[in-house]
Amino acid sequence: MGRGVANIIARQTPQLAPLNLKITRAAVRNLTPARQAEHPDIALTTDALSIVNDPNIQIIIEVLGGIDLPFALLQQALKNGKQVITANKDLIATHGRELTALAQQHHVALNYEAAVMGSIPILRTLNTNFAGDQITALAGIANGTSNFILSQMQAGSSYTEALQLAQQKGFAEADPTNDVEGLDASYKLLILSRLAFNLDPKLSSIQRLGITTLRRADFAAADFFGYTIKPLVQAIRQNQQLRLSVAPTLVPKNHALAGVANEFNAIQLASNNTNSLTLSGPGAGSLPTANAVVADLQAVALNLQAHLTPTNAATHLEAAENLDLPTQQAISLTSNGVVTGLDVATQLGIHGQIFASGDQLHLLTQAVDRHTVAQWQDALSHFVGIQLHHILPVYDPTVRGFVEKFQSDEKKMNITA
Amino acid sequence: MGRGVANIIARQTPQLAPLNLKITRAAVRNLTPARQAEHPDIALTTDALSIVNDPNIQIIIEVLGGIDLPFALLQQALKNGKQVITANKDLIATHGRELTALAQQHHVALNYEAAVMGSIPILRTLNTNFAGDQITALAGIANGTSNFILSQMQAGSSYTEALQLAQQKGFAEADPTNDVEGLDASYKLLILSRLAFNLDPKLSSIQRLGITTLRRADFAAADFFGYTIKPLVQAIRQNQQLRLSVAPTLVPKNHALAGVANEFNAIQLASNNTNSLTLSGPGAGSLPTANAVVADLQAVALNLQAHLTPTNAATHLEAAENLDLPTQQAISLTSNGVVTGLDVATQLGIHGQIFASGDQLHLLTQAVDRHTVAQWQDALSHFVGIQLHHILPVYDPTVRGFVEKFQSDEKKMNITA
Repeated sequence: MGRGVANIIARQTPQLAPLNLKITRAAVRNLTPARQAEHPDIALTTDALSIVNDPNIQIIIEVLGGIDLPFALLQQALKNGKQVITANKDLIATHGRELTALAQQHHVALNYEAAVMGSIPILRTLNTNFAGDQITALAGIANGTSNFILSQMQAGSSYTEALQLAQQKGFAEADPTNDVEGLDASYKLLILSRLAFNLDPKLSSIQRLGITTLRRADFAAADFFGYTIKPLVQAIRQNQQLRLSVAPTLVPKNHALAGVANEFNAIQLASNNTNSLTLSGPGAGSLPTANAVVADLQAVALNLQAHLTPTNAATHLEAAENLDLPTQQAISLTSNGVVTGLDVATQLGIHGQIFASGDQLHLLTQAVDRHTVAQWQDALSHFVGIQLHHILPVYDPTVRGFVEKFQSDEKKMNITA
Repeated sequence: MGRGVANIIARQTPQLAPLNLKITRAAVRNLTPARQAEHPDIALTTDALSIVNDPNIQIIIEVLGGIDLPFALLQQALKNGKQVITANKDLIATHGRELTALAQQHHVALNYEAAVMGSIPILRTLNTNFAGDQITALAGIANGTSNFILSQMQAGSSYTEALQLAQQKGFAEADPTNDVEGLDASYKLLILSRLAFNLDPKLSSIQRLGITTLRRADFAAADFFGYTIKPLVQAIRQNQQLRLSVAPTLVPKNHALAGVANEFNAIQLASNNTNSLTLSGPGAGSLPTANAVVADLQAVALNLQAHLTPTNAATHLEAAENLDLPTQQAISLTSNGVVTGLDVATQLGIHGQIFASGDQLHLLTQAVDRHTVAQWQDALSHFVGIQLHHILPVYDPTVRGFVEKFQSDEKKMNITA
């Protein structure tokens, strides 16, 4: 991605040219004469700290990856009064709060648009579009690897085939754990929640479920019930409470998010004033992500030119409490042929729909709270004659959260301060 | 919409409160004691010029509508060094260039996010997301009235029924001409093209077609061919050339824009770096539009607090030439029962598909240039035994324009000042 950023800056578009940006130094892991020869105008080094401490440098772009090293480097960079741009989602999810405080303290910018959803300008939109509004809920597809795999399974592949194809196409890493277990999406959800709600939820507050237990039978059942399965991140706000989830989720077939396929990402925001705003685009890829870095770079450079003290978002986060909202569930089981869906439904008190195909049973349930889901999970794990695969949540686009009622007295319209 | 803006400001969200915004004066058309009593803190007047000339006022928000009066008022406001926010699409399409020049000259901001696509932050996205990129094409649904009517027709209504329902729901005005004839969307396309391409096309360069000639038979034929019909604005760029169109357009059923229904708007951008970015949301409504005004207000107020000279977009536009790209067409005819679709296709040299239902003939043609469409139009108007209803363009999502090849010499990567 560093090369992508360098290439875009080298193009000197009409918007970039007046900003007088010049990449003077770059830290690399492996420095060879050949590599240096490729970039005669950039002094390459393996000593990243020397760049961070270089008094001639105004802006640091971090595209290293990892957490501990970039955290140490960027802390130093901010303390040295440098503007910082990073594409590092793990770092911002883990240490965003400390880094933001440091940036504020030293009157510099910390921008990280590229860390969430690649080229989709969601962070800038959250920061600039809702001054007079309150976001009540968000839902989205934040992990392109998972979406690609589920899209391929929707089209008939097995999980293993879909994963292999994703790896062949460069959409999945050799060890896909972070993506397919929902960790990557959880980090993104934390960052999104801070900027959307000004709340600071914990990673452990996210109800997280990976996609590895899904089978083609799940897609057939979802289709029968009128849904497709998407790797959804969801946040619903009620006052200071948040309900956060990352899970393969049943999404109504006619919903906009159901149509977002393969490596694409999307996010839908519900708010008091604007009802619904959706952004979608490629969620990863080195050029789209580099493009987001360059957009941050333009913002930082314009501020520098104007000698403007930047305003960082999410500087005063409040603690978030957990919210438990009743949600429909889709239960996936294999039966020994004796136990029927009706047996399971009767015994657990489930109302809803049953789809049976061969030895596969699928139940679409009424909306229940988390405690009931845990009870079902436990009961089904010990239910003689069936094997539980998973319990997936169902997306209800009509649940949009709610915030405090505004004190807007039309008669005494006190437009103050 | 003025009331919507006042109400949002009165709420004093945590983001707005530190900006110390206060509405002190407002111009109204009809001033009654009752109306003034409703707003004890806002001095109402019918003399808008006195507000524009008031030295105590820093920011002018224009939500009057019309062209001549707001043009005169905003010219004066900019000359007086006031920041200006307007939701007036007609004004910006018609006089945006002069007003932008005036704003630059007097070092103030002219912001008009609310003028295009209501709450969708498309102008801010165009201005902030593509510093290192080049947009090559855009396509979108920019008129909620037309989209509502076509969505209803798609579901089985006649044009008249759909228009009446749109009027009942407040989505169409008593005189819907500007919306259904594509004038409203054309103005939006002009504004979008300036910001997306830095080119200044003329209104007359837009190939414009209204939706009034559409019948249910057109939707049946489109469906047969694998399309739906959407009121599309399109711009494709090749170097300094633009191909601009506003027309009911056949869109492939599985394309994202085909799923944007009723009063919703959407826009899709194709660019060198990001391939595709889509934004969608409610395109009108007083609260979503007021929300966009307040987002502009936040930007302006932050600049004022920082004593920053604002940068206005689209200050140095270049002239645009017309681009003629071969495009597939859908021809809609009524036959006297003797002339067949094959007769028409043979006589005009059309290759493609024919759909006949009763006396209705529909031809989906090969891609042809504008000259050929004009020839067909003429020939079909004089063709004995048939009546021509219209020739609609077909959207090809794979045509994304192209711009100058970047001079990116990897070997000699001259990342210069």
